[in-house]
This record gives sequence, structure tokens and C-alpha cells, in this order.
Amino acid sequence: MKSRLNEASGVYAIAATPFHPDGRLDLPSVDRLTDFYLGCGVDGLTILGIMGEAPKLEPEESVEIVRRVMARTNLPVIVGVSAPGFAGMCALARQAMELGAAGVMIAPPGSLRTDDQIVGYFAQAIEAIGSDIPFVLQDYPLVTNVVMSPNVIRRIVTENPSCVMVKHEDWPGLDKISQLRAFEESGGMRRVSILCGNGALFLDFEMGRGADGAMTGYAFPEMLVDLVKWHRDGERDAAHDLFDAHLPLIRYEQQPGLGLAVRKYILQKRGAIASDAQRKPGSILSVAAKAEIDYLLARLARKDSRAAF
Amino acid sequence: MKSRLNEASGVYAIAATPFHPDGRLDLPSVDRLTDFYLGCGVDGLTILGIMGEAPKLEPEESVEIVRRVMARTNLPVIVGVSAPGFAGMCALARQAMELGAAGVMIAPPGSLRTDDQIVGYFAQAIEAIGSDIPFVLQDYPLVTNVVMSPNVIRRIVTENPSCVMVKHEDWPGLDKISQLRAFEESGGMRRVSILCGNGALFLDFEMGRGADGAMTGYAFPEMLVDLVKWHRDGERDAAHDLFDAHLPLIRYEQQPGLGLAVRKYILQKRGAIASDAQRKPGSILSVAAKAEIDYLLARLARKDSRAAF
Amino acid sequence: MKSRLNEASGVYAIAATPFHPDGRLDLPSVDRLTDFYLGCGVDGLTILGIMGEAPKLEPEESVEIVRRVMARTNLPVIVGVSAPGFAGMCALARQAMELGAAGVMIAPPGSLRTDDQIVGYFAQAIEAIGSDIPFVLQDYPLVTNVVMSPNVIRRIVTENPSCVMVKHEDWPGLDKISQLRAFEESGGMRRVSILCGNGALFLDFEMGRGADGAMTGYAFPEMLVDLVKWHRDGERDAAHDLFDAHLPLIRYEQQPGLGLAVRKYILQKRGAIASDAQRKPGSILSVAAKAEIDYLLARLARKDSRAAF
Amino acid sequence: MKSRLNEASGVYAIAATPFHPDGRLDLPSVDRLTDFYLGCGVDGLTILGIMGEAPKLEPEESVEIVRRVMARTNLPVIVGVSAPGFAGMCALARQAMELGAAGVMIAPPGSLRTDDQIVGYFAQAIEAIGSDIPFVLQDYPLVTNVVMSPNVIRRIVTENPSCVMVKHEDWPGLDKISQLRAFEESGGMRRVSILCGNGALFLDFEMGRGADGAMTGYAFPEMLVDLVKWHRDGERDAAHDLFDAHLPLIRYEQQPGLGLAVRKYILQKRGAIASDAQRKPGSILSVAAKAEIDYLLARLARKDSRAAF
Repeated sequence: MKSRLNEASGVYAIAATPFHPDGRLDLPSVDRLTDFYLGCGVDGLTILGIMGEAPKLEPEESVEIVRRVMARTNLPVIVGVSAPGFAGMCALARQAMELGAAGVMIAPPGSLRTDDQIVGYFAQAIEAIGSDIPFVLQDYPLVTNVVMSPNVIRRIVTENPSCVMVKHEDWPGLDKISQLRAFEESGGMRRVSILCGNGALFLDFEMGRGADGAMTGYAFPEMLVDLVKWHRDGERDAAHDLFDAHLPLIRYEQQPGLGLAVRKYILQKRGAIASDAQRKPGSILSVAAKAEIDYLLARLARKDSRAAF
Repeated sequence: MKSRLNEASGVYAIAATPFHPDGRLDLPSVDRLTDFYLGCGVDGLTILGIMGEAPKLEPEESVEIVRRVMARTNLPVIVGVSAPGFAGMCALARQAMELGAAGVMIAPPGSLRTDDQIVGYFAQAIEAIGSDIPFVLQDYPLVTNVVMSPNVIRRIVTENPSCVMVKHEDWPGLDKISQLRAFEESGGMRRVSILCGNGALFLDFEMGRGADGAMTGYAFPEMLVDLVKWHRDGERDAAHDLFDAHLPLIRYEQQPGLGLAVRKYILQKRGAIASDAQRKPGSILSVAAKAEIDYLLARLARKDSRAAF
Repeated sequence: MKSRLNEASGVYAIAATPFHPDGRLDLPSVDRLTDFYLGCGVDGLTILGIMGEAPKLEPEESVEIVRRVMARTNLPVIVGVSAPGFAGMCALARQAMELGAAGVMIAPPGSLRTDDQIVGYFAQAIEAIGSDIPFVLQDYPLVTNVVMSPNVIRRIVTENPSCVMVKHEDWPGLDKISQLRAFEESGGMRRVSILCGNGALFLDFEMGRGADGAMTGYAFPEMLVDLVKWHRDGERDAAHDLFDAHLPLIRYEQQPGLGLAVRKYILQKRGAIASDAQRKPGSILSVAAKAEIDYLLARLARKDSRAAF
Repeated sequence: MKSRLNEASGVYAIAATPFHPDGRLDLPSVDRLTDFYLGCGVDGLTILGIMGEAPKLEPEESVEIVRRVMARTNLPVIVGVSAPGFAGMCALARQAMELGAAGVMIAPPGSLRTDDQIVGYFAQAIEAIGSDIPFVLQDYPLVTNVVMSPNVIRRIVTENPSCVMVKHEDWPGLDKISQLRAFEESGGMRRVSILCGNGALFLDFEMGRGADGAMTGYAFPEMLVDLVKWHRDGERDAAHDLFDAHLPLIRYEQQPGLGLAVRKYILQKRGAIASDAQRKPGSILSVAAKAEIDYLLARLARKDSRAAF
């Protein structure tokens, strides 16, 4: 399975991590949420990402979540292993692979600035975890504060055969996808899968630029599944119609800091998790914000019945 | 006129600055663009803002633009005067007021971090330009990198009677509007006008939170005018319907760095300016990006005929 | 012992964390290094700080280090507990206190910007770990990217009775010490201990501004001990003479990113640790850099025999 | 003269810009300060740099300063032309060259992140000002927030024949000098002059790494002149002795934000300028800070009589 992530396409849901209101891990909700994603028709799962509140987990909790999710699905599961030290990154990566993960995902630490620093970091990280583990390069400058040019991505892909996928969430980022695909077409870069994040805010056009699909945590993964499918089937206008119906909510969910609270609020409403609590420190929705989300959902339900409660 | 900016409402268009392809100011297009905004039914204009490429203008060019616009309209005009030194800021502010401006707009420099530094900066700036000039506080952390809490805004408003308006473009920013209005209602802060920017990405809800309108440069100002009006008239659903039709384009236009190129491309298409050139250094639209914008416009035209060409 | 940290003075050594060249914890060197600091005459120890590579440790390693150091000394030990999540912070803080620590140290996460955000973060953190644990507020903008005004520090001290000390390492920072002491003298702030870090680069003047001593990891802690003592004894010129002899090396050690490599290189030379290895990712000294440090040490030895090998 | 800047060595003083207390340019002090630098034995001057408060000057003031300084000296003068827009940069650069400048200096704007963005910026800038004007690449991440790897500098030097010098002030930066010189020795990069800034904080070792001299504004330029000369003459220990005597003051002057106030305070004391005023917004020295500087000067005077007043 490992060797096929570079051909991955479709939708990989970025899984939230469910907590009880008192901050304890909610393991039954991990099961329920996994089932929810499966029911949406996703092609894979990504767990312990930035949106999964991974930095707030203890190592044994991270492993427990991997174990729990792996026991529930045969789909490929990618495990976020970003960590300040390579020792911790390696430990989690190896445990995840032993438990059956398809690969791991690494985001660069915020201190990196130059091309050489970024490329050098991934060289060291892969040396640490081992070059036998397929890894996803996470490119999310809005959160990591690390800006990778297309050239840098090309260098990382070329120098690390175990790099199988780019989680693309630069903003603006459309031309970046085109440039990476142009590298591939001209023989300048090995083919990797490109799945798009950034809350799906530009997924309608990212598909046309050559993306293979989405890897994000939008609270209606089934819309992402449809969108990717319809785009593949050449139903461009229909795909845009569906996307546009969801865009007001997508936009609302993609607010820095606040977004996860919006997402968990909806996932709870949809019954996918028992509580929308975040482990502290986290963000809180105001009463007005909740009313706005409810209004957005009601409007959405007129066009997409899956938003009706 | 000055004393009434704190009651301003409706739409103030952030005016682009038109250049010839060789980088020279295009003064006839300044006239044409001013007429275009007036034709859209805006309530005022804001010129020489960040989106107006103001830092790339020579002092005499800035004054020339103020003169040109003032000669063309009786609407209130706000002039951006942000500058690294107070001498330059003061010179432009005083010239603008002499030419008939309604007020000036000041964004904080990116080096400010603490509440006291921000409040202190505005105290010094207002001392420099004079407390008789009404000024707009620009709160745009995505671009300025300066984060102002509601408390800081309250302090600036309270300590500077000449502060008449907040150009609100924090992100997330909805609860911030609610908090500022709560300060006012509890008597903790003098009433100021709140006009919203950030490309109008959240204008649909900002009105419900208590904003007085919009101050942004979206290429269809007439939509903003309708939205604000319909919201005032209690036509909330209709306002959302209109907004949602435009959101795919609004979202596309609100890409950091690239946004101005999108905006100027559409303004040129609409005949409002002769060339979409930016003074260098600027951003350039790829062929693919232009095709995407054209597609978005075609889709929009099905719901709003003003987008038909 | 807890209740007396707010009267702490003298020198608290920021302890490095010793590793084997392969990255494993070097526990015998933890003992040796602890003995080394004790032999230098320090008044306390701070472990698991930023310079102690704490983010690269696994939770059980952190606890093991606390246990090991506590078993070796009766001096007050402060334990760095900064963490992305409050759950992890609380767990380590409570374990550290049970093992006999005198208090904990907390640095704010880099995402905080406004005064209210910073004050709010500490309110939440203290709620999480419990208000019975004395804590040190770490003010190190060069590394944390969080700028705290004197007012913010005053608010945190005032709102959290368990805040007993400020680790002061702002740059520039001399007037900040004066301002905090002025708050205290005017009754505006409860008295806390102020120990200075930032590699001791300004310790010669910080004492005159009202600091109680040093908390830093400079590789010659005995110099810091002398400096603080002589300053207390009114031997200002002698204190400056000693400081100036060390300044070329202090300056060399205080290079962002590279500093820890310099410090560990010297600690190894002094026999305080077996290896100067950092857990990866870390910085490496070039051959030229090592020669420069050796030259600095040779020059220093002419004035301070403790630098002779 | 132009073609020889790439062989420049020795000391180029970064000139402060003198203002009257009310903020007006103090032109007689421009003359006096120019004479002061000449009397210190410098090899060239750099005017309108970051420390010269250039962004706070109006265009005609900048030109007036160039004219005034050029009329006073036959030494090579480098003119800072960094500006938000290429139009302004080009105008000043061409006027400076017409007035007899030896070259111009350009610092990258803070928005640049990736290698390609930085290299691309300089390509555009040089296209704008013309490739016939020799230019100095300013590498000062502490202030510009732009980090250039040695590779990026090599690319800029190689792609722009008019790049004749690097103003090196990265921190840490010693290995960077070694790397640039290694590029040259291996034939990978054309030879350029490397003059060091960053307040001279590491000049003692930068010379040994291959720097050609200093370009900084330390208030005792004659010390820099001696240091560079002695190093060239092989008097390494004597050079370090002199440097070490000045280091306590150098360190005090190199405080972010506050440094220029320290520098101007000393220049005024030395009679080089009439007032230490900065054009607003600027930094102010506290009474305690002035006393500390006076104390440092008194201590320095015991070892270097030029510091005696």
C-alpha cells in the first residue's frame, strides 16, 4: 500500500480529535468520527494533523488514536508526525507504520526561512525517521509561517524518494500547482500526488490546475467527494454549482484560530462527535457566531439536503 | 463635513490608482475611475490606501491624485496618509485637507507590538498632523502585521477625539465588531463609524454585527451598495443571496499579493481604467488565472447582469 | 520554600541538557553538570528551559531529568513547563512539584500578540496547573516572538498571586527593569524577583537597574556569581572589569541558533558534560568557530584563570 | 571610480542624518558630520541608509543630502536607495549617480521569503535603476526580516554584474563570510567586496573570515579604521585588545530600536552634530541610559583617549 500514495487521489479527510468537555480524549467519538468519514465516501484519512490538535497530545495518546483509527478502517491512513525534535518524530512515525499507517505527514518548523534551510530540514528529518517511510510534505505557510517555492518542493521531492505527496495549502496557490505539474511534464520532477487543504477554499479551481483531490477537514466531506468526482467526470459546471452552495460556510470555517471551533460545532451537530470541546488552549464560539453558523447551515440545506438537521 | 464622518455609513470605495503600462500615473483614468465609483452609487471614496499602491507614489503624485479626485466629486473623500515618518504624513494630510478631503486614514507601521506601543504611535501621529484633522484608524493585521485588541481601539478612540472611524479588516473579526459596539452601548466608548474592508469577505455578517457599511475595493461596488441598503431595509435573505452570488469572485479577489491584479483586471474589463498595470514591483496574472476570472464573471453574470460584458 | 522565590536573588543557572552523540539522554552527565553548577556557587537551578532543548524531550525523559537533578541538590530548582497544550504543561508541573521543585517557568506561545491575549493565556495556564504552584514568567521576545510591555507584566503579576519571578530577557530591556521597579515602589505592583537572562549580555547594567541577579546559561556561571556579589557589595567598577573581560565570549555565545553549540562546547571543555552533542535538529560549530572560541578562551584566561585549561 | 567598488576595503562610515530638535534637516551638521568622518580616516561614506532615517525623508531632502555630502569629499560615497516602489528607487539612484555617487545600496523589502522571490526582486530592481549603476547588496535580516542564504547572495552576484559589494550584517554571520569566500575561491562566484555592519559587534572575527572591512555607524569610526588596518598588518592580538576595549559600548549601541539614539548621543557629545534629535517617530534615551553611556565612555577613555571629553 505504501508505494501507491504517490498515485493517491480523491479525498483524504483531515480528522478532528474529539475530546470530552474536561479535556480527556473521547475514544468512542474517535470511532464514531472515523465511521462518519467512511460514510462520506472518503478515500483515506489523515490524523494527528495541525487541525487535529496534535501538539496538545501526549505521545501515548497519539499512539492510542492511531491504534483506534486503524482498527476501524482499511482505507489508507496518514499520520501527522511533526514535532520539535526528531526523536519524538521518529518514535511516532515508526509506531504509526507498525500499526499499519500508509504514510506520515511532516510540516516544517516555523524557524526555517531560506530554501537551503527548508531542504536541509527535510533531509535531516527523513534521515531520522528512515527513508522507508512514505511521507507527505505539508505546505501551509498561513500556519507554519514557512514559504516554500515550487523549486524547494521540487528539490525535496527529488532528493527524498520517500516523498510521495504534497499537501498543498499555500495561499495564493493556484499557479503553484500548475508549476509543479509543469515540472513533472518537462521531466524535471518525479510525479507525486497533490491533495489540497486550506479548508477547500479554492478546491473548485485547484482541480482544474492539476490537483488530485482534497485533504482537508471541511465539515461536509461528502461535498468534497462529489466535487472531486464530478470534476473528474468533466462535470465542471455542476461541480462549481455545488461548491458555490457550500462556499459561504467554507469561508466561515476558514477563519484563522476560530476555524476549528466552527468545524467541531458542525461535526457535533451532525452527530459525528459527542462534544465540540477543544483541549485547552482553544477557541470558543460566541452566541452570535453559533447563530451565524446555524443560519448558514439553514441556507445551505436549501441546496444540499445533507445540511438539513 | 468633517464632523460627520463618525456618522458615516454606506459604501466608501477604496480606489485603485491607475497607471500606464510604463508605470506613469494615468490621470485620465483617475477621472474615469472616479466617475465609475460615483456611478455605482457609493457614499464616499478612499484614495491612496494600501491597495492604491500609495507607498510607490512620489509625494507630488499623491497630491496630484487628491486634487484630481476632489475636482470630480462632492462626496466625502478620505485620503490614506500612512508614512514611515511623521513629517511626510503631516505634509500630505494638511495638503489633502486644504484640497477638501473629509479626513485621512492611518495604518500602524509593522514594528508595533504591544498595546502601549500602538496607542503611543497614534498619539504621536495625531500630535504631528494636528488634532483638527478627522482620521480613520485602519485595522488590517493581515497586511500591517499589527494586531489591535478591541481595548486598544477603544483607547485610541477615547484618547483622540479626532478619530472618527474604524476601517475594520481583522480576520477573524466578527466578534470584534460586536465588542466595539458593546463598548459604545455601555458608555465605555464614544460612537465611531465602522466600515469594513478585507475585500468584503465577511460583509454579509458584518452588517448584522453592527457595522455601518463597507470600505473596500471589490470590483463590483454596486453590489456592496445594494448589500448595505438591503440589510438596512431588513432584507437579510435577499442581501445574503446577492452576496453569495458574488462570493466566489470576492474570495478569488481576496488573495494576498495577487488580489490587486485581479481587481484591476476586472476594473479594466469594466472600462473603469485603461490599463490594469501596476507600478513595479507588482503582481502579474497568469493566463490560467485570467481564464478563471473570466469563468467566474460568466457564472456571476447569470445571477447579476452587471457582471455581463 | 515555595513562598520565598519572590525574594530570590543571586544566580540561577539555566542548565543545559546533556545528550550522548547518538541523541540519547546522558544521565551521568546530568549529575556531573549539576555538580558543576553547585561548585560554581549558584543559588539555584533552572532546568528544561528553551536552552535545555526541552521541546525535544519525551515527557518521561523530562520527568527523569527533574528526578535526577532533585536527587543531587538542595538548592531551589525551577522547572520549565512550557508546552503547546495545558494538559502536558499541567502534568509536568505537578510531577515537578511532587519531586520537590521550587517552582515552574512558563514562556508564552509565539501566536500571542495583544496585551489581552498574553494576559489571558497566563490566566488559563495558571488555572490549568493550579494557583498553588509558584511560577516564573519568562519574557524572551527574541526567541518567543511575544512582546510584553511593563503593563502586561504588571497585570500578570497582579492577577496571579502565584507569579513570583520574572525571567527578564527583553532586548533592549534596561528601562523595562526600571519601570517594573517603579511600579513596585509606587505601590502599583507586588514585589517579584527579577532575574536576567539573554546570555547575560547586559547583566553589568541590569544589576544597577534593580535586578536581583541572573538566570542564564553562560558557560562560566562563577563569573555571574562574582558579578552579582560584587555589585551587591558596592564594587561596581570591579564588577564591570570582570564583566568586560568576559564580554567578548558572552557576545560570541549569544548568537541566535548557534549559541547553544558554543555553550555546550565550552561546558564539555570544562569537563561539565561528556559530549557537546545536541539532540537533532541542532546547530553545529564549524572548525573556524571552534578556533575562535579557543582563542577567546585563551584571551580570557589571561584575566580570569578559570578560563585556563 | 565606479568599477572599483568591488575591490573596496577599509571602513565606510554609515552616516547618521542630523536633524534640528524640531525635525528639520540640519544641513550645517551634515557638513560637520562629513568632516568628522573624514577626520576619522574612513575610506568612504554610506548615506541614506536605514540608520540614516532615510524612509523618513522627503525625496528632495534625500537629494539635498547627497549634494551636500558630495560637495564636501572626494571619497567614494554610497547612497541608500531602498524604496517601496522602483520608480522612487530609480529616481534617487540616477540623481545620486549624476551627483557623483560611487554606487547605491539596496535592502530587500520585508515581504520577500523564498530564494526565488529575493533573487527576482533584485533582478527587477536592477532592471529598474539600470545595470550601469554599481550596487551594494544589504544583508541585514535583524531589521529587514529577509534571510538570504549564501546561495542566494551568489545568485544575485552572478546574475547582476553591477553588484559590487555585500554589506554583511547577518547574525550569526561568521560562517557566511567563509562560505562566500569559498565560493569565490572555487570559481563559483565573482569576487565582491564584503564590508561588515551590524554595529561592528563581530568585526574582530569577521576580518579573519575574509571580510574587507567595515560599513557601520559606530560612533568611534577611528577605532574601526585602526582595527581593519591592524588586522591587515597581522597585528591580530592588538586589534582584539582595541576591539575589546570598545566592545562594552559597541554592545550598548547595538540595541534594536534604541541604538540610533545612543549613537547620536555620542556623536553630539563628540561635537560631530549639533543635536541628537531624531525625526519622529524615534527613540528617546532615559536619564539612566545616558548615565550608563557616560559611564561606558569614561571607562573606555582609560584605554582609548579618543573617548575622553
